[in-house]
Amino acid sequence: MASNFLISIPFFLFFAIVMAGDPDITTDFVVPMNYSGNGPLDGNFFTFTGLCNVVNSDYTQTFTVTKATTTNFPALDGQSVSYAFLQFPAGAINPPHTHPHSAELLLVLKGWLNVGFIDTNNKLYKQTLAAGDMFVFPKGLVHYQSNDDPNQPSTAISAFGSANAGTVSIPLNVFTSGIDDNILARAFKIDVATIQKLKAGLTPKA
Amino acid sequence: MASNFLISIPFFLFFAIVMAGDPDITTDFVVPMNYSGNGPLDGNFFTFTGLCNVVNSDYTQTFTVTKATTTNFPALDGQSVSYAFLQFPAGAINPPHTHPHSAELLLVLKGWLNVGFIDTNNKLYKQTLAAGDMFVFPKGLVHYQSNDDPNQPSTAISAFGSANAGTVSIPLNVFTSGIDDNILARAFKIDVATIQKLKAGLTPKA
Amino acid sequence: MASNFLISIPFFLFFAIVMAGDPDITTDFVVPMNYSGNGPLDGNFFTFTGLCNVVNSDYTQTFTVTKATTTNFPALDGQSVSYAFLQFPAGAINPPHTHPHSAELLLVLKGWLNVGFIDTNNKLYKQTLAAGDMFVFPKGLVHYQSNDDPNQPSTAISAFGSANAGTVSIPLNVFTSGIDDNILARAFKIDVATIQKLKAGLTPKA
Amino acid sequence: MASNFLISIPFFLFFAIVMAGDPDITTDFVVPMNYSGNGPLDGNFFTFTGLCNVVNSDYTQTFTVTKATTTNFPALDGQSVSYAFLQFPAGAINPPHTHPHSAELLLVLKGWLNVGFIDTNNKLYKQTLAAGDMFVFPKGLVHYQSNDDPNQPSTAISAFGSANAGTVSIPLNVFTSGIDDNILARAFKIDVATIQKLKAGLTPKA
Amino acid sequence: MASNFLISIPFFLFFAIVMAGDPDITTDFVVPMNYSGNGPLDGNFFTFTGLCNVVNSDYTQTFTVTKATTTNFPALDGQSVSYAFLQFPAGAINPPHTHPHSAELLLVLKGWLNVGFIDTNNKLYKQTLAAGDMFVFPKGLVHYQSNDDPNQPSTAISAFGSANAGTVSIPLNVFTSGIDDNILARAFKIDVATIQKLKAGLTPKA
Amino acid sequence: MASNFLISIPFFLFFAIVMAGDPDITTDFVVPMNYSGNGPLDGNFFTFTGLCNVVNSDYTQTFTVTKATTTNFPALDGQSVSYAFLQFPAGAINPPHTHPHSAELLLVLKGWLNVGFIDTNNKLYKQTLAAGDMFVFPKGLVHYQSNDDPNQPSTAISAFGSANAGTVSIPLNVFTSGIDDNILARAFKIDVATIQKLKAGLTPKA
Repeated sequence: MASNFLISIPFFLFFAIVMAGDPDITTDFVVPMNYSGNGPLDGNFFTFTGLCNVVNSDYTQTFTVTKATTTNFPALDGQSVSYAFLQFPAGAINPPHTHPHSAELLLVLKGWLNVGFIDTNNKLYKQTLAAGDMFVFPKGLVHYQSNDDPNQPSTAISAFGSANAGTVSIPLNVFTSGIDDNILARAFKIDVATIQKLKAGLTPKA
Repeated sequence: MASNFLISIPFFLFFAIVMAGDPDITTDFVVPMNYSGNGPLDGNFFTFTGLCNVVNSDYTQTFTVTKATTTNFPALDGQSVSYAFLQFPAGAINPPHTHPHSAELLLVLKGWLNVGFIDTNNKLYKQTLAAGDMFVFPKGLVHYQSNDDPNQPSTAISAFGSANAGTVSIPLNVFTSGIDDNILARAFKIDVATIQKLKAGLTPKA
Repeated sequence: MASNFLISIPFFLFFAIVMAGDPDITTDFVVPMNYSGNGPLDGNFFTFTGLCNVVNSDYTQTFTVTKATTTNFPALDGQSVSYAFLQFPAGAINPPHTHPHSAELLLVLKGWLNVGFIDTNNKLYKQTLAAGDMFVFPKGLVHYQSNDDPNQPSTAISAFGSANAGTVSIPLNVFTSGIDDNILARAFKIDVATIQKLKAGLTPKA
Repeated sequence: MASNFLISIPFFLFFAIVMAGDPDITTDFVVPMNYSGNGPLDGNFFTFTGLCNVVNSDYTQTFTVTKATTTNFPALDGQSVSYAFLQFPAGAINPPHTHPHSAELLLVLKGWLNVGFIDTNNKLYKQTLAAGDMFVFPKGLVHYQSNDDPNQPSTAISAFGSANAGTVSIPLNVFTSGIDDNILARAFKIDVATIQKLKAGLTPKA
Repeated sequence: MASNFLISIPFFLFFAIVMAGDPDITTDFVVPMNYSGNGPLDGNFFTFTGLCNVVNSDYTQTFTVTKATTTNFPALDGQSVSYAFLQFPAGAINPPHTHPHSAELLLVLKGWLNVGFIDTNNKLYKQTLAAGDMFVFPKGLVHYQSNDDPNQPSTAISAFGSANAGTVSIPLNVFTSGIDDNILARAFKIDVATIQKLKAGLTPKA
Repeated sequence: MASNFLISIPFFLFFAIVMAGDPDITTDFVVPMNYSGNGPLDGNFFTFTGLCNVVNSDYTQTFTVTKATTTNFPALDGQSVSYAFLQFPAGAINPPHTHPHSAELLLVLKGWLNVGFIDTNNKLYKQTLAAGDMFVFPKGLVHYQSNDDPNQPSTAISAFGSANAGTVSIPLNVFTSGIDDNILARAFKIDVATIQKLKAGLTPKA
């Protein structure tokens, strides 16, 4: 009889090491094994400068999301928090999407936004937010933000209670991932031609 | 100075008592305060008969989901597990949807199904499942199941690692919850007329 | 002074990588490092066919449990859900046991079963279940299922809110693992001869 | 359409308020609503004197477990830690049992003990512990402690990583809770007479 | 024998209802039982305007922290995220403190800051941050932020992965809470006169 | 388009493997990959003898903490529990400190202690504890223990609900880690000379 743990060692070795997860860590922080800064670990490891341009910038030409997550800021690993900085030119929209791993707490910094989310009973909760207003999009629910001002850009910052909130964009996810036209037509109770028209208008994620 | 807990008592009283949550319980199980069976608590509390009809039934005329969750089976509260029983007439579809609180592990019992999910990189993972086949839809991701057989019905059972997985139906959530036509048109990069056509074809959740 | 993390790196390296755990993952799913399917990752990775035989089979000669857990279905890793399929010939029993990591939600598919669990106050909760009936065995408590029909086989499916629920079979665990006769005799307040008789009747897990 | 939360309020009210659970709290500590000490909350609420007698006592006549858990020490609620103090007269045994909610970390204070646990592969891990020795019984696994010294009593203290670890005593749970003789006979592969003999020797928990 | 749950109901009733906690909720969101907005629940419940003044304001005369937590923004309950907005006049400091329930992710919006934290090995990690720079203070560790510019104010926003991160200010906690002079003198290895001088300079939290 | 998981594999490989964490494990226990005892794994792996000397010793000359954590007792990994044994000569103090990952449950074994903790509202909760008394220091809060007896030593044992509770000593953390004198002077509202006097009296952690 092989004992439980002897079996499990080689097995979980393959899987668990790709698992990060937001559960608490029991060390102060987590350092990459191959970390190599200029000499020993110091404050630079805990610093992220990737938002400097957008925080200090003029407005963008297209809707732009700049994130600080474990992907580009490794010190966040195990710390259960991350940011996204959102820049909306006049008339820009952040289409309906979900974050599978976290709620989103959005603060408008400049301009104004129309926002909304839909709960699991299909009820819409919407709001018009001015600079300084905050709105919480509950975890896992579909939501959007729209700059409906014809002239004025707007910016917002969003905090997440996960180091890697993840994003599922509904238009791209549903209409550019290759689901069969026939399945989508039946799902949306529409003709195949309309499905194809929807697909044609959307650009798959690069 | 008012102490922390004296302030917190009246405050959290209002909120926390509506919070169930799948975190571990420290009692064996959770019993409703107003529970009143026939005499003292017994095995009946832990029994659910609401799936009897569907498990033993002939096939349904329309796609039907029958769930056993904390809503109709209170003994599941705090036990982190629930079921859904899925009945697909020939040609029926379970449209793209997500479960915010849990992965889904589907087992085909009769007939066959085409299924798929899309990850956060918009990659589609699909499969054709025969009776006895199992498929896991990862937590929070958009997925669908479709009976593409012209004549044969199919049935499946799905397990969830939450007592209340929740469901966000994408077509109903996005197109029947009252999001402005203009916002949807910009989000899906399509004309307003198409949005209105999509809305017209879908029946809001009762 | 060695800093905290420099010490912790080599140390936790040895331990943490064998730790899987059902805490949430922050990726969509977890793929084995050495995964090699036919080309790139696709729907096959999320498909499990190991229950096909039992779901579609005639009845078995002996009580049989067929599981789909992270051990044989790696895509379940981090998804907090798994299945067991139970086949009971007439008169067969699934002896008292516990699952250390999860509650069990059992659904009778064919035939009928007597089931029960005992809480931490030693109170027994029992039930007779017909096809279509469901019963929840709370996490960590001792429970059993028994087909008390003299002629009719029965089948059931059980869902678990963990990808690896684990099983502790009381008869095998206590009487075939090598605990000293004298300790068992004092624990069960019985003579050593009875302990030896119990041990003789049970076959250690292979 | 009733909205999700309006339905959920009255429902979860009944259930969630009996759920304690070891998940983290977000307040400093938890105070009973009906707490009434001598004036305002002070250090007495965080003090437990129920172990004084046993810590300072001579030895007991029978095996005795004295616990400090949320049941008798409410300040532990939400703090995920508790104690048990174990007193073994010469020859006394703590029969095979499990703690559903926590591992146990035992420290022998006086005398010596034979201890063991069995993993889910039915492998026994045992040890002889002298005063000052420590042993960890992993979460949810069957374990025992036995004072096999013919003359010397022993004492130990056990820490748990839960404020309410729970205890399932195998002999009492299986043989005094009222499980049918026939079911037990088939489970343990023994005659009914032996089951009845086992039942007769054990005293149900009062 | 009283059964486990009948005992536990009245007991946990008193305690658990004051427990909020950041563990996942299984509803979309949590609504206060006594919630009364203008008619039915709508987007206003998910909106917080308490930061408008500070986000849009000129600079403050003293160091000011403005928080959005479950205390003043109930919709955050169960969503595991919150904000603090920090305003530093020239030369102002946010003294060494910890957040027991969360890491802090700080983003400098205007001006610059010297920041640092100390790990459990007493190693200091420090950094000078310009506008747009981000710094993570790991969970539970002592940290500070200081505007060392003689003339220029600075502002920052901090995200937390908890709806109620909590704050322990070291100077106030240690020197204004009433710990005996003699204990503090021995703890800091200094004379009582110095302890009294330290106490005299600090103003207890109102 | 690179798929999500293919990117995440090399990335999380570096980070997650140094992450231990107290979340539940899904194996019985965790064994170091490089474990090499005398032959196969047995009870020795689960045994810790590092407290034998202190449990059985006479009193120490200086305040001494002896810990059993994952660092020196690897079998604790994933079991969420650990111990510290505290020895106080007459007049000794354990200065104000926090444990970032766990509450502490202290039991006085010999002698007596003055103890206290301060909550996030800066309220002090203190107590005088005799042998056999127990006191809980809530998770993450500043606390101290002081033997104020002029002649009698005292000993205590503390349990933690984490395998690695961590310790932040306030005097050492704040005054020996190299924070600038000027920052500390402004934080404690005291002159630089007093800060320097405080620093001079404290010995940095070796």
